[in-house]
This record gives sequence, C-alpha cells and structure tokens, in this order.
Amino acid sequence: MASLHPFDPITPGEIQLAVRILESNFPGVKLRYKRIDLQEPIKQETIPYLEAERLGKPRPKKPTRLLSALFHRLDNGSFFKALLNADTKSAVTIKELPKDVQGPVDIDEMIELEQVCLDHPAVKAEIEKLKLPAGMTVCLDPWIYGTDDASESRRLVQCYMYIVATDHPQNNQYSLPCQFSPVFNAITHELLRMDYLPGGADAQTNSTQPWKPVPTVQYAHELLDEPLRTDLKPYIVQQPEGASFNVIGNAVSWQKWRFRVGFNNREGLVLHNLTYDGRNTFYRLSMSEMTVPYGDPRAPYHRKQAFDVGDVGFGITANQLSLGCDCLGHIKYFDGYRTDAQGTPIRLQNVICMHEQDNGLQHKHTNYRSGAATVVRNRQLVIQMICTVANYEYIFAFILDQAANIELEVRATGILSTVPFDNQNGQTVPWGTNVGPGVMAPNHQHLFSLRIDPALDGFKNTVYYEDSVAMPEDDNNPYHVGYVTEKTVLKESGSAFTSVDRHRVFKIRNDNIINSITHHPIAYKLQAMPSQMLLASPKSFGTKRAQFATRPIWVTKYQDDELYAAGEFTNQSKKSDGVEVWADRKDKVEDEDIVLWHSKLPPTSPVTRERKVANNTAAFGLTHNPRIEDFPVMPVERISVMLKPDGFFTKNPALDVPQSSQSFNQSIQHPEPAACCEPQDRNQVKL
Amino acid sequence: MASLHPFDPITPGEIQLAVRILESNFPGVKLRYKRIDLQEPIKQETIPYLEAERLGKPRPKKPTRLLSALFHRLDNGSFFKALLNADTKSAVTIKELPKDVQGPVDIDEMIELEQVCLDHPAVKAEIEKLKLPAGMTVCLDPWIYGTDDASESRRLVQCYMYIVATDHPQNNQYSLPCQFSPVFNAITHELLRMDYLPGGADAQTNSTQPWKPVPTVQYAHELLDEPLRTDLKPYIVQQPEGASFNVIGNAVSWQKWRFRVGFNNREGLVLHNLTYDGRNTFYRLSMSEMTVPYGDPRAPYHRKQAFDVGDVGFGITANQLSLGCDCLGHIKYFDGYRTDAQGTPIRLQNVICMHEQDNGLQHKHTNYRSGAATVVRNRQLVIQMICTVANYEYIFAFILDQAANIELEVRATGILSTVPFDNQNGQTVPWGTNVGPGVMAPNHQHLFSLRIDPALDGFKNTVYYEDSVAMPEDDNNPYHVGYVTEKTVLKESGSAFTSVDRHRVFKIRNDNIINSITHHPIAYKLQAMPSQMLLASPKSFGTKRAQFATRPIWVTKYQDDELYAAGEFTNQSKKSDGVEVWADRKDKVEDEDIVLWHSKLPPTSPVTRERKVANNTAAFGLTHNPRIEDFPVMPVERISVMLKPDGFFTKNPALDVPQSSQSFNQSIQHPEPAACCEPQDRNQVKL
Repeated sequence: MASLHPFDPITPGEIQLAVRILESNFPGVKLRYKRIDLQEPIKQETIPYLEAERLGKPRPKKPTRLLSALFHRLDNGSFFKALLNADTKSAVTIKELPKDVQGPVDIDEMIELEQVCLDHPAVKAEIEKLKLPAGMTVCLDPWIYGTDDASESRRLVQCYMYIVATDHPQNNQYSLPCQFSPVFNAITHELLRMDYLPGGADAQTNSTQPWKPVPTVQYAHELLDEPLRTDLKPYIVQQPEGASFNVIGNAVSWQKWRFRVGFNNREGLVLHNLTYDGRNTFYRLSMSEMTVPYGDPRAPYHRKQAFDVGDVGFGITANQLSLGCDCLGHIKYFDGYRTDAQGTPIRLQNVICMHEQDNGLQHKHTNYRSGAATVVRNRQLVIQMICTVANYEYIFAFILDQAANIELEVRATGILSTVPFDNQNGQTVPWGTNVGPGVMAPNHQHLFSLRIDPALDGFKNTVYYEDSVAMPEDDNNPYHVGYVTEKTVLKESGSAFTSVDRHRVFKIRNDNIINSITHHPIAYKLQAMPSQMLLASPKSFGTKRAQFATRPIWVTKYQDDELYAAGEFTNQSKKSDGVEVWADRKDKVEDEDIVLWHSKLPPTSPVTRERKVANNTAAFGLTHNPRIEDFPVMPVERISVMLKPDGFFTKNPALDVPQSSQSFNQSIQHPEPAACCEPQDRNQVKL
Repeated sequence: MASLHPFDPITPGEIQLAVRILESNFPGVKLRYKRIDLQEPIKQETIPYLEAERLGKPRPKKPTRLLSALFHRLDNGSFFKALLNADTKSAVTIKELPKDVQGPVDIDEMIELEQVCLDHPAVKAEIEKLKLPAGMTVCLDPWIYGTDDASESRRLVQCYMYIVATDHPQNNQYSLPCQFSPVFNAITHELLRMDYLPGGADAQTNSTQPWKPVPTVQYAHELLDEPLRTDLKPYIVQQPEGASFNVIGNAVSWQKWRFRVGFNNREGLVLHNLTYDGRNTFYRLSMSEMTVPYGDPRAPYHRKQAFDVGDVGFGITANQLSLGCDCLGHIKYFDGYRTDAQGTPIRLQNVICMHEQDNGLQHKHTNYRSGAATVVRNRQLVIQMICTVANYEYIFAFILDQAANIELEVRATGILSTVPFDNQNGQTVPWGTNVGPGVMAPNHQHLFSLRIDPALDGFKNTVYYEDSVAMPEDDNNPYHVGYVTEKTVLKESGSAFTSVDRHRVFKIRNDNIINSITHHPIAYKLQAMPSQMLLASPKSFGTKRAQFATRPIWVTKYQDDELYAAGEFTNQSKKSDGVEVWADRKDKVEDEDIVLWHSKLPPTSPVTRERKVANNTAAFGLTHNPRIEDFPVMPVERISVMLKPDGFFTKNPALDVPQSSQSFNQSIQHPEPAACCEPQDRNQVKL
C-alpha cells in the first residue's frame, strides 16, 4: 500500500485487509458486510503532506491510512461500525450501534428484498387478483421507509409494485403502478403490513381488482410506436493530438489546475486538493447530501423522502459508463470499489468519466476603430458521474475552466416516481400531474447540499456576504443613481439566507493575503442559486430529518468526520444530526479552518436571523412539479452553482489562452444551396 | 421584390428605393439618412399568410411591405420619420419629429464626432498638457449623454478620453482613462463644456496635469508580458455529413422546428414564426431593450446610462463573424444591411451565425434490474449574434433543442467602462473596484427586456403564474408534508413579480386547447431568472427612463408598433414611453393576442401589486460589481432564460431522438500511461 496517496480511493486489497482484521476480531462469528470504504484522512496530518507535494519539498510521513466498515453479526443481527488502521493492519475502534440506527441500503440487500417480496404468499395472492394477461408480470422498487413513528426501531422497507411486460428489458414499469404496497422487516423478512394505495383524488383505497389493461408509456427506442428521427447528422469531437490533461493514478493536471479525483461509496465523486497555478484553492468539494421529499399528502406517500446519499450512496449507484454514450471526444475513466455482503471486493468500472468540452466563447473584444479582435474560446474539463437511484438519474459534473472557475452542474433525468390514479374521467389533483392513463406523478423537491471545504492561499479562510444597496439620497448621491456594496462577515458558525433583491453574493476570503491592486483580501465568490427551500411543515418528520434543507447557506468550523449535511445515518432517521448541530456550536469562524455548505432557501428572510450566521456550508434545490413532458423519461433539468475567483488574481487569468483560429478549430461554412432555391438571397445581394 | 417573405430583412434594393421615394418628396433638399429599415409587417395581414404556409394551403395576398426611415434635413437640421410602402413605391407618412426627440447614434455620426473632438483646439490644448511621450496618443468613446436636465433639447455627446499607445491596433485604452471629458453639440459640433473627472474617492476634480506613466493592462495576445499557454490541444467538431439543418433564404428547418431568421438595425437578430412539429409556438422573439445604469454617484458619471438597443442598435453593432473564431463545426452565416448617411446600402456580412452544438445528455435511464440503458444526447441549434458596443461585447444566442425548449442565452464580455482613480496609496471606493494602476471600474447593472410574442396553437393566449405552497395543516394534510400549486391568471394588462420563496413560475397557455392526458390547457412555461431590478431611485432620470427595468414581468395586449420596452426614442429621453404605458391601458389579456416581456426584479414585492397585473412582457438583468478578473477583458458572464413546453405535448417530445452510440459519436478512450507511472492503478486492480 506504500504507493497509495492519502486521497486515493479504497483498493480491493484494502477491502480484503479490512475483512481479515474484522474476522480476527470476531472469531467463529459470521459477519455480513454492508460497507467497507476509505475513511477521510485526518486533515491536520494531511495538510503538511499536501503542502510538501505542492511546493516540491521532501514529503513528510503520510497521514494514517484509515478504513471504515459497517457490518452485521449474523448470529444476533447486531450492527457495528469499525474504524481500522490499514498501516498497522489493526482495528482502532469497533463499536456496536444503537438498535434504532439503520445503515444504508446495500446492493445485495436490495436484490434480496425484491425476491423476498415476490416470493411472499400474501404478495403472490395480490398479484393473482390482478389476473394479468400472458406476458405481463409484477416488479417492485423497495423504498426507503421514511419515518412516521419516533418509536420505530425495526429496519423497514416499503415495496412499490408495478406491472411490467416481460418481452423487453426496458419495459417501463413506472407507467403501470399497482395499488397494493407490502411493508417488510428488512432483517427478519417478515411481512408487517399490506398497504393499499389511493386510487383517485382522495385518500380512499380499494382492494386489489383485476387489471384493466392500458397501454404502457414507453421510453425505450425499440418500444416506441413512432419512428425514430432520421435527420440528425453525426457530430464528432476529434482531438487528433489527444486530450489536454495528464493523469497519473488519480492525480490530474489540466491547464493550470491540479487536483485529485476521489471516489467513495457514499458521495461517489469527490475532488481533493485543487490548486490553480500552484496556489491552493479548495481542500475538498463534494455532494454531501440530497433529500427528495414528496408533496402528495396521502398515506403511505408521506413516507416517500429519500436521502440518496445517506440512505443509498451515489458511489454504489454510479453508472458504469461506456464510450460514445455519456461524453464526446477523448475520455478518461476512473474505477471504484465496493464490498459485497461476503466481503468480496467488487470493481465498479468506469464510474467516473473525465473529458474536455468547448463551451463557446471565453472572452472577446473587437476594437471598433481598428476592427482588430481578440477571441478566446472556453475550453472546460468535465469530471462526471451518473447515478441511477431506482427510477431517477442524477448527472453530477464538476466543470473546471481556464479562468479558474469551478462549476458544479447537476442534471436530473430518468423516470418520475409515479402513483396509480384513475384519471380517465378528467380528474386532476393539485399536488401532481397526470402523465399517462391511470398514472400520476406527484410534486416533489430535490434539495442538495454542496460541501465546500476552502483553502484559498491557505487553510484559514473567512466567509462573508456582500449586498448591493442604493446609496442614501444625500449630498454624496445628488443624482440618486449611486449604489454600493455592503459586507457582512460571518464571525460565528451558523446559517445565512440568500437575497435576490439585495443581489447578495457569498464570498470566501483569506484575510492574511491582500490583493496588490484591489487592496482587498484575495477571495472566491459562490455564485449560488437562490431557490425554494423545504416546503414540508417544521412539525413534519420530513423537516426534522433534513434541517440542512431549511437554510441555503451554512458555515461551520472544520472538524474531521463532519462530512454529511443530514448526519451519518439518514435511513429511517427521526431527526437529522448534521450541519445544523455543528453550526450550533457557535464556533469562531473568522480566519479559521471552515466549511461552507450550500442549500436553497427563500430569499425573503428576516435580517435578525441573518445575524445568527456562524458556520460554513450550503444547500440548493429544485422544486419539481412534473411536466407531462418529463414522462416517460425526463429531459435533463439542469441546475448549476459556481465558485469564481473574485480578487484572487490581479487580472483575467485566461488572458494567456491562445486566440481561437480556423487553423486550430477547422470549422466549415455551410454550403449555399443552388441559387434557384433561394430567391430571397439573390434579392439581398442585388445592389 | 415579389419573392420576399414578409419577415425577410430589408434588402439593399429597398434601401435605394426608400432613398428615391424620400428625395422625390424633398426636391432640392439635401437629406442625411440615419436609419432605413424594414417596418414590422401588420400582424393581422401577416397571420393568414403564415397559416397558409404552415398548412400548405394556397397563399393569400402578402401583407403590405413597409419600410421606415429616420433622416435629417441638412438645410435646417429638422429630424423626420417616414413610413414607406415598398409595394406602391410611395410614402405613407412623413412627419417631422419634435425638437427634443433624438434619434439613435449612427456609425457615420460616431466616426465624425470622434474627429470633431480630436480636432477641437480646446481638446488639443488639454492633450498638450498631458505631455505624452512619443508613441502615446489620445482616443475617445463618444458617450450617449444620459439626461440630467428635463429642459435640454440639444443633441449632446460626452466624450470619455483615454491615453493609448500607437504601436498596435489592440492597445487597451480603457486601462488609461484621462481626467478631462469634453461635451459637444452633436449637430452643430460646438464644444459646450469641458468636464473634469474626479481623480480620487471624492467628487473633487483637478486641472489636467502631465501624465505620470503607468503600464497599460493589455488583453491582446501580442501585447502580453507572459507567454501563451502551449498545452491546449486541438478540439475539432466534425460533421462529415454536414449540418442537420436546412436553410432556404432566411427560412430554417431543423429537427421538428421551423422558423425565420430576422434581422433589423435596432434589435439585430429576431426569430419569427416558430413552429414545432407543425404546431405554432411563438410569433416573434426579440431582445427588445437593454439599459446599463452606472452606480458611481459622482458627476458626470450619473449620466452614464446606455440603452444599447434604442440608443445605438444591436443590428448595426453586430460583429461580422469569421470562421473558426465564434463557433465550431458547420456554420451558416446570415447578412444584414444598413444605410450610411448618404443613403448608400452597406452590407453587414455574417452578422448572424447558426450552428449545431452538443450539450451533453438529453435524457438517460438505466434499468438497474436488467442493466439496459437508454441514452440520448442533447443536440442543439444555436442562432447567435455578437454585438460590440464600444467597450462591451454582448453575445446573444437563441438555442433550440429537440425537446421543444427555447433558450435565450446572453453572455457579457468585452472591456469594463473605466474611470481614472488614484489608487496607488491603497484607496478604494464602495461603488467600484480597482482594476489596475490609476484605473477603477464602477458598479453597474445590465437590465434586459426579452419580448415574447406567443402563438401557442393559435394567436390568442393567456399568461398566468403558478406558486408552490404548503398545504394547510388540516385533515387533508395529516402528516404536514403536502404541497400544491396555486394558479393566478393575469386578466388585465400590467406587471407581475417573481418569487423564489414561492417557486413562482410564469406560464403561457391556450385556454381553447386542452391536453388529453393532463386535462389542463396546453402551455409553455417561462423559466425566468429572478434578479435584482434597477437600483437607482424612482426620483432619478435613470428610473424614469427605464420603467421596464422596475418589473420582471409585463403583459400587454398586442398592438402593431409596440416593440420597444423603453419606447421608440431612448437617446436623451426624459422618461420612457414603452411597456409601462401600454400595460397601463388595462386591456383584457385573457385569451387574447398578448405579449410577455421579461425583466428582473426583487422577489420581495407586495401581493397587492401582483394583483395589478395585466399586459404581457418581461425584463431580466445582471448587477455587475466588477471583479478584477473581469479586466482587461471579461470572462463571459452568462445569463439564461428558457421557454419550456409544460403540458404542450402528451409526453417527452425527444423520445424519438436516436440512441447515443460509439459508432455515431466516435469517442476515444484516453490511453493509460505506462504502468510505471501509476503504482496506484496497479494497486487498485490487484485482486
């Protein structure tokens, strides 16, 4: 393992090592492994190593290589978390977790539960009642059981059932939801309850009736009624000299950027130790959490609140990507690893892809006197993962550019989570949209938490916000047109609000480094996206479990192990134990090692609350009231957040990007059709 | 002219025709031409012609081909507007305009004024005082004279002077602003006043002193001190079978879209008569106006408020584009025409470009049970113009996609408008940013008005907005998680506000056509961008002249000649005479021929005012507090507004786009470096 970098993802050898260590600690006991992964290295041990790398100095001792493991004892079902030292090949701590702590869903468990459900006599009996024609069967999505009972300690799963044809691997079951929904104990596999779903606009449910066949709304090309388009011509990205990036292991260099591609089972893609032109910018960037609460008020839908990072994991659900599908041009792939239930390492091939893209113009100016123009195109580096969480797909991309900007782009696609709804008679509901015969897609929200661990020219930074406000109408503003920026420093950990009407911008600065031209501390700004926060009532479990999603901006003082905005264990959590707790420590966060988290929130918030700000983090989101055009598969809905230098440099850092030129780009002019086809053009050139 | 389509831009022949008609109306009088352009055809005459085209029926009589002209009599300087009939080759109306109405700046006038200024003895005397070294000279930007006196009726121009080296056509004069600023009468060419600019943080001015040389902050590649990057590899877009679009004259077909590319001197690029799959969507889309007020409170900067559409024109300032610079791949260019002062047609070559681009994934879903994936890429059609208005560049692109979305993307680049500022001693101001030695860039706003003339399945439409609101905590919402959408129809012309905290979405629908699945009227939504509105006081001329920029959404009942949000004549206007006036008619706008205009405004606005809504238009904007990274040339600042089908179709309209495949895309995998370079990888694959 000597050659591993502290930020390198876990290796199969390390998974096997972890299993050996744990087995030696539980002689004669059979263990079921849920997750074995890299433990984020201790920051104070890691910084000296990174700084030596950055400055080309002799490397100090590497930080301790730590692994973490979640597993069950199969003899008594008890659930454990272990912290292991991979250097000494020994356990640091092994602790049994409280009975009501539920770990994330793992792949083997998911597959197992689907079978348990389909094999159960009561479920078979319900399926029987559907009297399905030949070629039709029933499948299910085992759903995370959103908490609605503070005393519940069993591991539960709610199975949403769908009718699906068997003649093609991409038949769209979400077009044909069933009206029964069994609930199982995920450990004992016993059926606890058979829920029945509302069939109409009210909460009334019915016993299972024979299925009245309706056509499936299909998305797969082979299953469409209509012919495919034939007039789309090939569009090929050629990079005859290869890509502009260099990769050694997980270390990437591109243009003036250097960083490390990280991967873990929970967050999936993580970027570590980003430097630009040899200067520190960010220590770690990650998608810390996402919650998806649904707005259909009726049981059992009130339990539909997924935490796709904490409950499942973007790492284990990341697509294994293939050439020509997900990116164009010259593609580099990265692998990851997970364990299966037996402790065998499973390779996750091509779960991260990296490629360059052209995003139009970077800057242009034409001197109108001389006609001379400077034109530079905007080459970008895209590091991307695509996660399939049952019905939905999320595309996460960190996009770096030549002007030292970092964009996090999230694209939502995939299939809406649907419910049965008798809409033949023109019936509608105000909390959802009819998307096909007998099927409705309820309103829901996607609330993300982007975790930003800054290191702007050092590891002690400060967060503040800047508002644009009109000047008073006094002698200093005689024409009433003046406006200025007002700064508010977040001195104590806490939260803050966005404000569109004040054009509020959040910035991270290093108070110890002053820009020689602007005379202000060097800084980056967060170009946040103001959006609606959690709509659920503060009284609801939905809100208690996702406090991070009630504020767009959080700032916390850095502590190891504080990575997940809604806390470590979100599955069936009764309340979150995350950023709101850390923020509440009221730590000093001015010129300290801080973390900024971005969620979304309404900008209309009392100034009094703004004053309470003191930690460092943020969330953002998407209120998704489905369009019928989002079915049966959703055109990407794109949201974007950017980190931009703001006084970090002394001029545009992309000035040295060469001129765009025909010899370089080899564009081609569209041939003019024969003159006979275009009387208008003939007219226009006639002088 | 028989072959001209009603929406075809003016031809050189028509410019010459207009000149002949006007000369015959002013025998023996010398005329100076400011603008000769196409007059938008009368809508009621045009619709039957378009519908016949769309339905493949015999064409009725074409609408009257109208031209408009602005010109001066050189004998007495009086200013006229004429409306001409190109079919009958005769004048419809010729009317003299009031003395205090100022037409837009034209190219000949601009060039002339620069010379007038540099030739004036008083200006020469000031330049003399600078005692410039050899190789340095002075140039100027003649600036629109923002009104600060309601009684002023002269045509004025304020000249901002800069020091510039003569050894290269791209020396950056904006890095070296002078402290004197002459004001001329643009008609008589007399010098009215020599203004002096503040030199420091207060309003105090100084007489012109010898220039203390400081280095120019350069943007041109040949003038940079640092070497250019050498590690950027070619990125070539190849379309071996050509583009997927077809063009005949200005008529374009691409995928299921059909539309006409329009061009005029004022708005530049305009899209007409957009249909998707044979269905009407929008009659006309255009950038109606933009105002750029500056936030520096000191004279004479309070007069810096440009209306780049009305004062100058995006058509006449549009760059003549060249292959390989501004777009990649397979490019189609369109020309335009303007007149010069003598009435000679001037060809504006390649002022609009059109090309396809790949924008990542359009939709994807992986069936996690079967592993089978459907992946479709997002091919887009970009119709673009790039306008240089003195220091700034604006890139306007209408982007159509295969899912029937229309995006308007605006990118701001170019050079900040700068002022002299003695910042050597660490001095700063709260209304601007030091961007170089002795130079400061003041805060300013860019407020746009996008004019949307909808025709969703017909020419009578309705605008409404939909808010996402939590359900009351009653028996219908027992778990307190429910939320619903609330619709508010705009029945009477007026304005409305955006609201992030209510996730307000504005929609346009056709009440006469009900979607068979959703059971709601077919509709498009406007994905607006909530942003800060005009910061200037309501008392200021800045606000009186730009009422459109005080509301994000306006809705008006369509009338011919109501195209420009701030009114027809913005140059030195005392108050606007535009959308706020038309909205104030309180016309019925439910199920009528309406126009929607989008600007930007704070979302925190009284509900009472929201109720006043009744016409159809909108503005949006960008509060630009300069970063030093925006100098000496600005990395693009991107803003985007989208029109998306929302219940217009019965499913995702892009389902029939073929699967993305390696055979089609020909992507290439990044070669792995020799194993010796990547111990980490070796480790990771060791099992």
